Amino acid sequence: MMNVPHERLLGHRSEFVRHANLSAIVREIHFNGGLSRSDLVARTGLTRSGIRAVISDLVGAGLVREERAPSQGVPGRPSPLVQPQPGGAVVLALEVAVDSLAVATVGLGGQVFDLVRVDRPRGRFSVEETVTDLADLARLVRARTPARDALVGVGVAIVGVVRRSDGVVRMAPNLGWHDVPLGAQLAEALGVTLPVAVANEADLGALAEHRRGSAVGVDHLVFISGEVGVGGGVIVDGRPLVGLAGYGGEVGHMPINPAGVVCRCGSVGCWETEVGERTLLMRAGQPTGGGRAAVDAVLRDAAAGVPEALGALDNVGRWLGVGLAGLVNILNPQVIVLGGLFGRIHPFVAASLRTEIDRLGLRASSELVEVRPATLGIDAPLLGAAEFAFEPLLSNPLAWASSAQAAASGA
Amino acid sequence: MMNVPHERLLGHRSEFVRHANLSAIVREIHFNGGLSRSDLVARTGLTRSGIRAVISDLVGAGLVREERAPSQGVPGRPSPLVQPQPGGAVVLALEVAVDSLAVATVGLGGQVFDLVRVDRPRGRFSVEETVTDLADLARLVRARTPARDALVGVGVAIVGVVRRSDGVVRMAPNLGWHDVPLGAQLAEALGVTLPVAVANEADLGALAEHRRGSAVGVDHLVFISGEVGVGGGVIVDGRPLVGLAGYGGEVGHMPINPAGVVCRCGSVGCWETEVGERTLLMRAGQPTGGGRAAVDAVLRDAAAGVPEALGALDNVGRWLGVGLAGLVNILNPQVIVLGGLFGRIHPFVAASLRTEIDRLGLRASSELVEVRPATLGIDAPLLGAAEFAFEPLLSNPLAWASSAQAAASGA
Repeated sequence: MMNVPHERLLGHRSEFVRHANLSAIVREIHFNGGLSRSDLVARTGLTRSGIRAVISDLVGAGLVREERAPSQGVPGRPSPLVQPQPGGAVVLALEVAVDSLAVATVGLGGQVFDLVRVDRPRGRFSVEETVTDLADLARLVRARTPARDALVGVGVAIVGVVRRSDGVVRMAPNLGWHDVPLGAQLAEALGVTLPVAVANEADLGALAEHRRGSAVGVDHLVFISGEVGVGGGVIVDGRPLVGLAGYGGEVGHMPINPAGVVCRCGSVGCWETEVGERTLLMRAGQPTGGGRAAVDAVLRDAAAGVPEALGALDNVGRWLGVGLAGLVNILNPQVIVLGGLFGRIHPFVAASLRTEIDRLGLRASSELVEVRPATLGIDAPLLGAAEFAFEPLLSNPLAWASSAQAAASGA
Repeated sequence: MMNVPHERLLGHRSEFVRHANLSAIVREIHFNGGLSRSDLVARTGLTRSGIRAVISDLVGAGLVREERAPSQGVPGRPSPLVQPQPGGAVVLALEVAVDSLAVATVGLGGQVFDLVRVDRPRGRFSVEETVTDLADLARLVRARTPARDALVGVGVAIVGVVRRSDGVVRMAPNLGWHDVPLGAQLAEALGVTLPVAVANEADLGALAEHRRGSAVGVDHLVFISGEVGVGGGVIVDGRPLVGLAGYGGEVGHMPINPAGVVCRCGSVGCWETEVGERTLLMRAGQPTGGGRAAVDAVLRDAAAGVPEALGALDNVGRWLGVGLAGLVNILNPQVIVLGGLFGRIHPFVAASLRTEIDRLGLRASSELVEVRPATLGIDAPLLGAAEFAFEPLLSNPLAWASSAQAAASGA
């Protein structure tokens, strides 16, 4: 429970403190892109000479480079910008979504080298087929990535409930999977000895929106994302809410309507039964299996003023607000980010969900919360998987970078 | 977002590191009572000589003492036990509950020097009356506490929604209070220049059960407590879930039954309308204003097998389980602690609430969670207020102890 503000830690010399300094600086540069030495002094509390030493180590490891900043018409030599060296550390990000597979390579600083998304019909795919397809895509993407020997991590986002400790997918109703050791199977198929870190896609969507999307700088955050089901990810005090085993954030299965219908999870009246795609399509008179094309049709109808579409959206908006009011009362967040389906329908549901948050939330909390659409779109979980895969490197830049490179090149 | 395991931090010499070492050692001793130097080496990662230096500082400040341990029949000199010196740092804890006021003085290590609880009828009391009564009780209790000059903090638990930054009670429906600057008013009435730290009583109940009650060592924890209303406190990863402004944990106002009744908060179908004392008493055929005596009558009837009482308890148990299933899905806790009314009725509701958690919770999470009654009883929030008041001292033992003593003795 001891919280050491890292600014206070960074003035001292020793091997450990040197690592902490390296970590702090790499994080700043990874999150923020190019920063001047003066920026780094201000953000970390390190001395100028301390910054200089750390940057020299990081340049030596190939993780950052220094660049002359453009002159801003101010007298004196401009402070050089420290830039991430994207090719110096690369992660592989994979995603198993409801109706697509995706793979990307992302460099330090967040540069996406390559990203491939392949649609596949919704339905039950075998684990073997999915793993093989992902490994094939990964080979393709890695071959097109310049610095492929600098692989430092692999992250996987999946539409399912994941045990963090070993990457086992406990349950993925959209795929019909139970207790699948996805992390281990992907490590083998990819031929890497690096750990493959697997997590729920909405948890990773929350991480991506927090670091690179609609909620940068927001430390109390709820991300909800809908397609067939409803996923959620929560950030508490700047840290992802993981829970005991990694199952936290499953807001789609809050019991919300005891008089409601049976959910795919086997329960009754879960939030997702009232706000999911199926309910929206049914109420709007579209085929419930119509997928994204049918949702597009609802949005077109709504824009044209078709009452059935507007009514269906209003209904989903109200039930969204009911559940969000509960989350506002439990979590007192600063921002709620709407992703996936909810981001797309945001313009049509913003008013009704706000009404319900204000009606059902405690005023102290509801008056503070802002609801925003996500900005990273469909790729948020994939980009979150990349961020997740960078964590070991960010915690111990030099040690990790060298050992991971050895492991990757030995594969 | 940088997490430094404090074990790794503690091997280094410097003024800052010395403070971190002092803080780590005082926390260990405050939480665990007497520990040998060997225990402290194992728990903090400090060297023996480092431990010796820190203990010497803490003995000098009057915060700990060393005591020869009883011989355990092992050859060699036994390692002396480092004990908290309860009189070396004392906090004042206050509580505004639904039907009582309470004040205690608590010493380092958790020793309760004195505790007074005064019942008062439920209903609306003015702020002035409440503040005056608390200040009178505090004077009495402090006069009976031996080391009253060593006051290092004041903590207040209140049945209301509290803004942490300035101790303003935004809303306390049981008292009819809105936007009351309770922290400032109590500081004046008590004549202290120490900050008066105010928080919601269920948040502090969670803290107390986590540190000294039913959930020691449990880092993912939900505490729910019922009297008239339903309060909650959440611990995520060992840290209290506070939210943006301090309003987190208001689980009593999760919307749970859209077909339900109007809540005191102005909303409809909140969890507390289904599980609160009023609903229990009404269903059991007791006067709804009967308070704790009426609840006792329900429990006596249930023990005697009266169907109406058993049915009312079963109903409350099922609704408890519905809401808890939602919290299990959102938070993936290890333990749920039932406090207040829920702790008292636990034997009669354990089976039905478990049934609902298993029916409505995701299996991955529900199979991991254990439901326990609280062990600190009615005093949990008061003891949590004491822990809350100790925080500044625990973070910086020497600086805080000396400045706080100066402030207190100047009052």
